Amino acid sequence: MTQRFEFALSARDGRARTGLIKTPRGDIRTPAFMPVGTAATVKAMMPENVRATGADILLGNTYHLMLRPTAERIDALGGLHTFMNWDRPILTDSGGFQVMSLSGLRKMSEEGVTFKSHIDGSKHELTPERSMEIQRLLGSDIVMCFDECTPFPATEAESLRSMQMSMRWANRSRAAFGDRPGYALFGIQQGSVFKDQRAESAEKLREIGFEGYAVGGLAVGEGQELMFDVLDYAPEMLPDDRPRYLMGVGKPDDIVGAVQRGIDMFDCVLPSRSGRTGQVFTRRGVLNIKNARHQNDPRPLDTECRCPACQHYSRAYLHHVFRSQEIISSMLLTWHNLQYYQDLMSGLRAAIAAGDLATFVADFHATRALGDVEPL
Amino acid sequence: MTQRFEFALSARDGRARTGLIKTPRGDIRTPAFMPVGTAATVKAMMPENVRATGADILLGNTYHLMLRPTAERIDALGGLHTFMNWDRPILTDSGGFQVMSLSGLRKMSEEGVTFKSHIDGSKHELTPERSMEIQRLLGSDIVMCFDECTPFPATEAESLRSMQMSMRWANRSRAAFGDRPGYALFGIQQGSVFKDQRAESAEKLREIGFEGYAVGGLAVGEGQELMFDVLDYAPEMLPDDRPRYLMGVGKPDDIVGAVQRGIDMFDCVLPSRSGRTGQVFTRRGVLNIKNARHQNDPRPLDTECRCPACQHYSRAYLHHVFRSQEIISSMLLTWHNLQYYQDLMSGLRAAIAAGDLATFVADFHATRALGDVEPL
Repeated sequence: MTQRFEFALSARDGRARTGLIKTPRGDIRTPAFMPVGTAATVKAMMPENVRATGADILLGNTYHLMLRPTAERIDALGGLHTFMNWDRPILTDSGGFQVMSLSGLRKMSEEGVTFKSHIDGSKHELTPERSMEIQRLLGSDIVMCFDECTPFPATEAESLRSMQMSMRWANRSRAAFGDRPGYALFGIQQGSVFKDQRAESAEKLREIGFEGYAVGGLAVGEGQELMFDVLDYAPEMLPDDRPRYLMGVGKPDDIVGAVQRGIDMFDCVLPSRSGRTGQVFTRRGVLNIKNARHQNDPRPLDTECRCPACQHYSRAYLHHVFRSQEIISSMLLTWHNLQYYQDLMSGLRAAIAAGDLATFVADFHATRALGDVEPL
Repeated sequence: MTQRFEFALSARDGRARTGLIKTPRGDIRTPAFMPVGTAATVKAMMPENVRATGADILLGNTYHLMLRPTAERIDALGGLHTFMNWDRPILTDSGGFQVMSLSGLRKMSEEGVTFKSHIDGSKHELTPERSMEIQRLLGSDIVMCFDECTPFPATEAESLRSMQMSMRWANRSRAAFGDRPGYALFGIQQGSVFKDQRAESAEKLREIGFEGYAVGGLAVGEGQELMFDVLDYAPEMLPDDRPRYLMGVGKPDDIVGAVQRGIDMFDCVLPSRSGRTGQVFTRRGVLNIKNARHQNDPRPLDTECRCPACQHYSRAYLHHVFRSQEIISSMLLTWHNLQYYQDLMSGLRAAIAAGDLATFVADFHATRALGDVEPL
């Protein structure tokens, strides 16, 4: 096993790429989907079962973990991997995005951001330096630069000011991260929907130099069409030989479109959150298990899925336990959704490797367009 | 595998017994603890993991299942075993106890009981005949007679009236059950804390004849001392060559004392419910994971336990996920508690087989008396 963080592409199909990120904690097959383990758990899942779906890497949330149980406590307990019983790679975000979306009173300055915890109102500070320290204490394998996720919509001037501050923070993040062989620091491109700003941001990040690069500031309400517009140019501004990560994306068709545009890594709460709200991803689209049409249906959610929900339970059972608010409903539906996502990534990787992504994508859309199986 | 319901004792130690119930769906090692799967799920557990703890049989609740998803629906879907993915034996209660404790407006007569659903207020009827029908539709392997669980305290006259009605219902249950090879019907002894009434009830049940017998009307608020007083005489009034089941019991020391008094089967929501409220059973007694003393503790809940919670997670992690109200907290703590209960039963069986129950029980109490490990 490697002692360094490495990335090697093995095939391309158009702008799409497939390859392998090597880390001391294990390999990550790309394009990769990272399940979100916000508070040191992928909700409703045992980590060995997350792994069984095909996940090579998890995402942890710096904001949540710094507040509870705290990074210092996790460090004292041996790091996040040991704490949550996941020995493979972990990527952590910088905390900045969730400070803005979740915390109470907050104040931003060039230095960083001060805010109040949404849990107990206690006061905290995040700066590039503190974010690097927290992510190091957690033991994160892939560390994200501390940045400001520019809100959407933003004027050109607002976006420029925000992006340029994020680039200064990227510089401070790189300096604070230091020399840590085997660990990676990813820079985050900003610039909203403005091509020249995306170019400026990419240029600044390349000057600093990172082990990987994220496309930030998307999936924040701009819609798929505008997101794809940006992805038509933004990823290729970033180094070709480093992994490209589209943060917080997304729905299955978002992922497919982004892979076609050269993205290698994704994370999203959608499969796990949907598992708890009864929304189910299948090859034939999305279904809601709460719907009465499933009440007497002995069929599985998805005949092609190998997850336990599909192998051992009927739609009728899943409907029953969802309506009865039984915990096994969240367990089974989350497992299924994560399996669906990993199967999608696996299919994309194989198609790119075979040079046949267009067929795969056409089939993906055609099968979804069929809609769910007819009611019995 | 047997096509009949059979019971064979293999060893005795004092009044305690160990043996094997054979059913077409698998063997049940006695003394046995049955996890409760109220609404077609042992809450927060996958059935294969319930099995992995050592459970040979589950209990299902007729009252809950008849209301949602309904017995007829479960029957149409292939029965409760298929529905909930548990292919081993299932015992169902008669529904009577939970009608009295959970339902709204209810009216009891010699015929049976009418009541309103606690879920949607719909009106339902349970009689001995309907209870037998529901339990047959569910596909239950061990069916319980429809009875009235005499409340505690009851006057001698109240208890007598209640017990005698239950015995008439036992007669009707036996008639309605019919001839079903491979399935068992258990009679339920009543009589509250009155020895002569327990004797009369046992005599009536023996006249009718059942595949097994429950001691009913205990664990309803009378306390352990009074319960053990009754168990000092009630079980041996029942046939020696049939399994004896103490319904709704109980705490670990209740189980140990009841096994010493000749009980073969138990069920209780305590291990699973406690798993969701943070109460943890260990060899050194009960602990509450919510307590701040666990916040930095890298040690397992119980060093002798082989469950995933103890093998892979610290008290600090379990404290964190409990405080964060993460689903994995219920999953891990329930698994642990069920493992603890099954390990206790396994220890009891081995001790009886070895003719050394007294030593086992002394050690059980002595280890609990130590209390939890010292805080670090």
